Amino acid sequence: MELNENCGIFGIWGDREAPTIVFLGLYSLQHRGQESAGIVATDGEHFFTQKGIGLVFEAIDQQKLTSIKGRAAIGHVRYSTTGKTLYRNIQPLVVEGSKGLLAVAHNGNLVNSISLRNSLVQEGAIFQSTTDTEIILHLLAREKKNLIDALRVSLSKLKGAYSFVFLTPSAMIVSRDPYGFRPLVLGRRRNGAYVASSETVPFSLLDVEFLREVEPGETLIINDGGIHQAFKIPSKRKAFCIFEFIYFARPDSFMFGNNVYEVRKCFGERLAEEAPVKADYVIPVPDSGLWAAIGYSQKSGIPMEFGLIRNHYVGRTFIQPTSSERAFSVRLKLNPVPEVLSGKKIVLIDDSIVRGTTSRKIISVLRKAGAEEVHLRISSPPVKWPCFYGIDTPTRAELIAAQKSVEQIRNYLQVDSLHYLSKDGMLSCVTNPQNFCTACFTGDYPEPLYDAEFAKMRIKEREEK
Amino acid sequence: MELNENCGIFGIWGDREAPTIVFLGLYSLQHRGQESAGIVATDGEHFFTQKGIGLVFEAIDQQKLTSIKGRAAIGHVRYSTTGKTLYRNIQPLVVEGSKGLLAVAHNGNLVNSISLRNSLVQEGAIFQSTTDTEIILHLLAREKKNLIDALRVSLSKLKGAYSFVFLTPSAMIVSRDPYGFRPLVLGRRRNGAYVASSETVPFSLLDVEFLREVEPGETLIINDGGIHQAFKIPSKRKAFCIFEFIYFARPDSFMFGNNVYEVRKCFGERLAEEAPVKADYVIPVPDSGLWAAIGYSQKSGIPMEFGLIRNHYVGRTFIQPTSSERAFSVRLKLNPVPEVLSGKKIVLIDDSIVRGTTSRKIISVLRKAGAEEVHLRISSPPVKWPCFYGIDTPTRAELIAAQKSVEQIRNYLQVDSLHYLSKDGMLSCVTNPQNFCTACFTGDYPEPLYDAEFAKMRIKEREEK
Amino acid sequence: MELNENCGIFGIWGDREAPTIVFLGLYSLQHRGQESAGIVATDGEHFFTQKGIGLVFEAIDQQKLTSIKGRAAIGHVRYSTTGKTLYRNIQPLVVEGSKGLLAVAHNGNLVNSISLRNSLVQEGAIFQSTTDTEIILHLLAREKKNLIDALRVSLSKLKGAYSFVFLTPSAMIVSRDPYGFRPLVLGRRRNGAYVASSETVPFSLLDVEFLREVEPGETLIINDGGIHQAFKIPSKRKAFCIFEFIYFARPDSFMFGNNVYEVRKCFGERLAEEAPVKADYVIPVPDSGLWAAIGYSQKSGIPMEFGLIRNHYVGRTFIQPTSSERAFSVRLKLNPVPEVLSGKKIVLIDDSIVRGTTSRKIISVLRKAGAEEVHLRISSPPVKWPCFYGIDTPTRAELIAAQKSVEQIRNYLQVDSLHYLSKDGMLSCVTNPQNFCTACFTGDYPEPLYDAEFAKMRIKEREEK
Amino acid sequence: MELNENCGIFGIWGDREAPTIVFLGLYSLQHRGQESAGIVATDGEHFFTQKGIGLVFEAIDQQKLTSIKGRAAIGHVRYSTTGKTLYRNIQPLVVEGSKGLLAVAHNGNLVNSISLRNSLVQEGAIFQSTTDTEIILHLLAREKKNLIDALRVSLSKLKGAYSFVFLTPSAMIVSRDPYGFRPLVLGRRRNGAYVASSETVPFSLLDVEFLREVEPGETLIINDGGIHQAFKIPSKRKAFCIFEFIYFARPDSFMFGNNVYEVRKCFGERLAEEAPVKADYVIPVPDSGLWAAIGYSQKSGIPMEFGLIRNHYVGRTFIQPTSSERAFSVRLKLNPVPEVLSGKKIVLIDDSIVRGTTSRKIISVLRKAGAEEVHLRISSPPVKWPCFYGIDTPTRAELIAAQKSVEQIRNYLQVDSLHYLSKDGMLSCVTNPQNFCTACFTGDYPEPLYDAEFAKMRIKEREEK
Repeated sequence: MELNENCGIFGIWGDREAPTIVFLGLYSLQHRGQESAGIVATDGEHFFTQKGIGLVFEAIDQQKLTSIKGRAAIGHVRYSTTGKTLYRNIQPLVVEGSKGLLAVAHNGNLVNSISLRNSLVQEGAIFQSTTDTEIILHLLAREKKNLIDALRVSLSKLKGAYSFVFLTPSAMIVSRDPYGFRPLVLGRRRNGAYVASSETVPFSLLDVEFLREVEPGETLIINDGGIHQAFKIPSKRKAFCIFEFIYFARPDSFMFGNNVYEVRKCFGERLAEEAPVKADYVIPVPDSGLWAAIGYSQKSGIPMEFGLIRNHYVGRTFIQPTSSERAFSVRLKLNPVPEVLSGKKIVLIDDSIVRGTTSRKIISVLRKAGAEEVHLRISSPPVKWPCFYGIDTPTRAELIAAQKSVEQIRNYLQVDSLHYLSKDGMLSCVTNPQNFCTACFTGDYPEPLYDAEFAKMRIKEREEK
Repeated sequence: MELNENCGIFGIWGDREAPTIVFLGLYSLQHRGQESAGIVATDGEHFFTQKGIGLVFEAIDQQKLTSIKGRAAIGHVRYSTTGKTLYRNIQPLVVEGSKGLLAVAHNGNLVNSISLRNSLVQEGAIFQSTTDTEIILHLLAREKKNLIDALRVSLSKLKGAYSFVFLTPSAMIVSRDPYGFRPLVLGRRRNGAYVASSETVPFSLLDVEFLREVEPGETLIINDGGIHQAFKIPSKRKAFCIFEFIYFARPDSFMFGNNVYEVRKCFGERLAEEAPVKADYVIPVPDSGLWAAIGYSQKSGIPMEFGLIRNHYVGRTFIQPTSSERAFSVRLKLNPVPEVLSGKKIVLIDDSIVRGTTSRKIISVLRKAGAEEVHLRISSPPVKWPCFYGIDTPTRAELIAAQKSVEQIRNYLQVDSLHYLSKDGMLSCVTNPQNFCTACFTGDYPEPLYDAEFAKMRIKEREEK
Repeated sequence: MELNENCGIFGIWGDREAPTIVFLGLYSLQHRGQESAGIVATDGEHFFTQKGIGLVFEAIDQQKLTSIKGRAAIGHVRYSTTGKTLYRNIQPLVVEGSKGLLAVAHNGNLVNSISLRNSLVQEGAIFQSTTDTEIILHLLAREKKNLIDALRVSLSKLKGAYSFVFLTPSAMIVSRDPYGFRPLVLGRRRNGAYVASSETVPFSLLDVEFLREVEPGETLIINDGGIHQAFKIPSKRKAFCIFEFIYFARPDSFMFGNNVYEVRKCFGERLAEEAPVKADYVIPVPDSGLWAAIGYSQKSGIPMEFGLIRNHYVGRTFIQPTSSERAFSVRLKLNPVPEVLSGKKIVLIDDSIVRGTTSRKIISVLRKAGAEEVHLRISSPPVKWPCFYGIDTPTRAELIAAQKSVEQIRNYLQVDSLHYLSKDGMLSCVTNPQNFCTACFTGDYPEPLYDAEFAKMRIKEREEK
Repeated sequence: MELNENCGIFGIWGDREAPTIVFLGLYSLQHRGQESAGIVATDGEHFFTQKGIGLVFEAIDQQKLTSIKGRAAIGHVRYSTTGKTLYRNIQPLVVEGSKGLLAVAHNGNLVNSISLRNSLVQEGAIFQSTTDTEIILHLLAREKKNLIDALRVSLSKLKGAYSFVFLTPSAMIVSRDPYGFRPLVLGRRRNGAYVASSETVPFSLLDVEFLREVEPGETLIINDGGIHQAFKIPSKRKAFCIFEFIYFARPDSFMFGNNVYEVRKCFGERLAEEAPVKADYVIPVPDSGLWAAIGYSQKSGIPMEFGLIRNHYVGRTFIQPTSSERAFSVRLKLNPVPEVLSGKKIVLIDDSIVRGTTSRKIISVLRKAGAEEVHLRISSPPVKWPCFYGIDTPTRAELIAAQKSVEQIRNYLQVDSLHYLSKDGMLSCVTNPQNFCTACFTGDYPEPLYDAEFAKMRIKEREEK
């Protein structure tokens, strides 16, 4: 529960209420990014933009949206991985160049962004944002080809993770990198409009029928004529982000050929098999541990209870009283139920441990509320390596599992026992396990890291405060 | 899940950070009212006020709070039961009269407010708000006695529900009506400061030790000398609001001699005994049905699954696309998991049915997601009578259980079976069941209604828009 | 240019666009108060209120105004004389009491407000604002008579300055104290609607025909039947505020039987006669000295030049660079034109000197820009006594003319010569000079001060910060 | 009074409070643009940006500014000449390219922007704003030279008007086009910091000593070593904008070798000589006609009176009552003084007539207030040609003097006589009259118009709404 996703993207073609539908799509994808939101619509000639800081309903003025006559629109919600939110970094980015008006929304991170940016700068490009995403716009503008051919050449230069939704006055284009790191799904509304979305979760609200996932390497053109494959970059291997199942995606989404809920519950079942324990209750860390806890409870037969209650009215910042204890930040969100916990042996279920600081605070809260034994079970393997494909992980120095043994972690967290789900156990829950990226557990990155590691450190210094 | 509480109150005496502590207290009581919030602090001489519309962290500027030197403060969160939120109705109310500076925060509703108001107006009082609460301030000001004696006389004139926290420059005073309709608890911070709160839920965050509940009829003076009983109005009978257990209170609160979580889970267990059914899954309506569902599942042995996922980023208003279906408002908050529901027989657990419109939409969402059978189980008896003691219920004409039989409701909701928890089953879960008010189920109001029914209709017309 | 008016009031009866007309009326009266604004409208049954901090167009949402169906409305702009602007002090005040719904907007200050307030408090009244204005509402509510009779009795208890506009669902009522301290004029729109306003300045914009001034002591009822005198409190003497002509009123207003522009210019002419000087240019302090400067220039034959240019984009607060000089606050608003001033002998014209600090800064700016000689001419006598009738003056200790001789002031301001307009010269410019209050120059207050002096000191302590 | 300036620019190097000084500089230049404002500061390594919509004190958070440690900063106020204000058009623009971090603020308009933009787009550049200004950033980035050499080459490609202030982490650079269309002056603060500014008006407030104007064609490098000329593009002729004297510049500014006040007053004197008339009063249209009116009055001996009073609290938008007359928009800003005007023969002085619609309304207001004769005198020649060098003029079809004879205009405006200042009269008031651009009167544009005319029409369509 300590990791942050980069973003969610959503687009629609052929709907009289396109901007409003994108607004609602972004609202449903809000869990993928809460720092800023933007929508770009087109009426076939002009572009109309709305962007802002905060949640979708804070950043975007719905009233204005309804006055836009666009039949197509794309949108983006963002969690800033690179320091402070700058207005000019809010996506979708909109530019005018040799391909005319062009907007893009991006989920993922490139691993060769520094060298690409440097060589573009050498060639005279000027960068107005500090995002990876601006690179594709420069590459496209510099190709003296039509947009699709330019895309074919430009995408081949990108290394790393990207799910793109582009908008032009005459078409929406979606592209997914050949590894398929980040999800991207297609659907059709009852009125015939085509939809692209990071996840299927908005489909129920918007009466969208699921069509299929965009395949790794695929670039599709979507316009009034339907959906057509423009080209497909061949894929040596696939590398679906397993963390989408562990933590990021909504449980009610379908992606990478699996339903998130089922996979997440299966993690809990496997964990119960791999690391059983005698206990009174299974207690989930809400909401991240909820689904694995259901699996663990059902498989183990130990009843699940909600020993921690989550406060859903959390604001952005709180002034901490001088007198408050260390676990204050956790207590703002999670409150213990002493009547459930007191004198009980509990199995605490969470999805992952990153730095370990939050887990430690949660456990101290449980202890103080009277829990007699706390057995921590984590529904994923130890996170030992940073992600460079769109998840905001700290450096190895900060990853507790990269620095300590499981026993040392157990001791640090002050739990009676600690078990992580095994990599095999985890992969047994998904179809086609060979298609998943598990680099954050193993360090086996699906492709060379180019300048990504370097970028990670430098980017924070370069940008404005 | 369709009822609204009136408000939550919180006060502290003897803390250097009193305004910040009240801010955090109100934040923890946010579930009791989301329309406005206010804090009044005193440095022993002056009063300092902050009020605003919206959630606590929107309505109150924390930065300014920290600059206030008050050692005591009271606060209020409000759900407006009487139409639009007017700025001048935001509590705590602050006045200057024969008792000097006086502020009050109120949870509850008076049943003789119209006649009291009318007679005060006859005597020359001017009302600046449309709240019941202003009445007590007029009554106090008119008594030519000291504050405590004035309180004794004035409270005796009030009929109905009140938990009050008063603030003067030299003391905090708390009063609870002799029926004890609404909760009010006392605690002490580690630094010795005394706390009064609607519920215990803020105590964990703020390191407050629970002392006891304010007893029905009690008025207590809290100042640097500690907590002293000023007087106690004798109580013919008690009438604790059972709906705090059914829906309003946080599950991690203690009140009326019971832990909410345990009572709520017990409701589910009794329901499983009273109305068993053969089904694949127990599905809670999140979050209102969660705790009863745990009880139902454990007692029945039917596994619980989360077939409906709640969106926690809900904003205030959404523009509904013209093309959207009727259940749009429900879908914004609740999303089905077809992989869980499809082809399954489910027991759907919710806490209550008021108008029935929301329940009907939820069931249509479940059906559309593939649920084969839907057996609805409600963890409270049918709500047939309006509440006049601080809960915002509709009139009998709008209460579905006042208009239709259970079978008719079952048919309206389109469920395969429908069962409500019996009154006896419900009361079997609490200690001293004779102390509870069940008027919303039975119509047996603990005292005459005076002009309350009339007030209910008239108040909406009188006030400004 | 250092004094502040208390407020401006405006009302209209019988206009389909009443709230919008009041908005524009207040906009035209904005010079009378910039700290807050409020509008109350009625549809004959309910009241609709909008209030806020800041200028009229910041405080009031015009869009919402247009949706109000009121045929009558009153409004108020306020400069807070008593410390910080509190939301609950923003006028019009609205209450419900024995006279039904009642709203009031007030210009002026009572001199017996403390004793009235105290005795009301003794009788059980509760005060929710710290304004004088609330007193009349309590007095009215306590009279067991109809509204007009209650007004007759209640107004007779008020000592000091008041121009009131009351609104009820069925009539607008205007009252002016028997001295007539503050202005109040009547007009009729082309569509027949009746208007009451502090000044005539809004009449041109709103197509209002001037009818007459409300006479001192008069109370008028305005409704669909027209304007009718309810009663008239006999007036021993009149005491029109001469400072309206010196500084406060807009030059394009008519009041107290005179056009402000003509009176103000006449002040300058008299000053030229009384205090001639050999100089190159007449330089007005913009805009306060503009009209007297015209008079001085025309009478003396010395050409007028704009040696100081005013910046009209002044915001509320500016952070002063550490390196900036003392006259920074003046330079923000006034910029010298060295090409006009350099090496010249100038007659500087301003309307009044209060504390002297601003004048001193202005003169240092002129000197620095090269003015060789500065002869200061003030178009009013020395201000030696505080005002208790609605103008925010400092105490005698702060009034420079109460503490220093003219020669000492000349020396303090570092001017080559200094002359004030004589009282006789000033009064020679108005019709019926015996009708004017000149207490701020003479200390001859038109009536006893009651508790006003005491109030002045105490009020700042009483109120909240 | 109907024309709009493009913008004002301000920069400072070597001041610990650089961001605050730029804020105050922009505040003093506010008359040059009110739609948006921006400030970019540097600490020698990073850039810090603040931008926003509205006046400087609305757009920029002063509190945040004071926390920035920059020793250098540049700023910009903007009036959008091309439709709606887009956030990404707010200057200074900031980019990162082959010259590192670079920011620019621009006053002026290019006449070959379309062809430059098109050719840059052909070469692969992407445009993120719709401003002319972005062009110079692309040109600079594409030159494989150091910044100064790149500037030399890039500026030579620009046709039209530019006064630029650039900021890099190590220097501030200022450039002015060889015609010198728009002003740009240099100064030095008492603490040694160097300042560049559109006008001298901020110098008094900020204790800046005037050094000199940037010469047409000059590019200067400003850093801790002082001010050094980098290069100078030879100037065939100069073309200072005479309209700065007629209307735009503050009267208290010095530019183009003249003091604005003196020139503007001289216009009035010449006008009195060229077009005398028998009248009672000279009446200026405030504030635009004020200075010429002084000159006219002094030369003619006809006394000046303020027959129109300006309201200085004008907000952005006002809802016009349905019942209001046509001159409503003018009456919001200007109010007549009937006592001055009634029955009088007046000479009305204004600076220019563009469309004629405002003048016509003003005259109808004067007539209605009783003016017997209105003789209109304009302190500039008839505006017959659009400006392409930074002033927002309408097309010829909308310029009344391009469509009608003086007599026809007189008839349209309903004045008794109408005279414009002659071109020779106008030029007699400035030193080196041959250095001024008078194209808006004569159509003799100083250089070919390239694609400017075309741009004027197209740009509104291209951009987003």
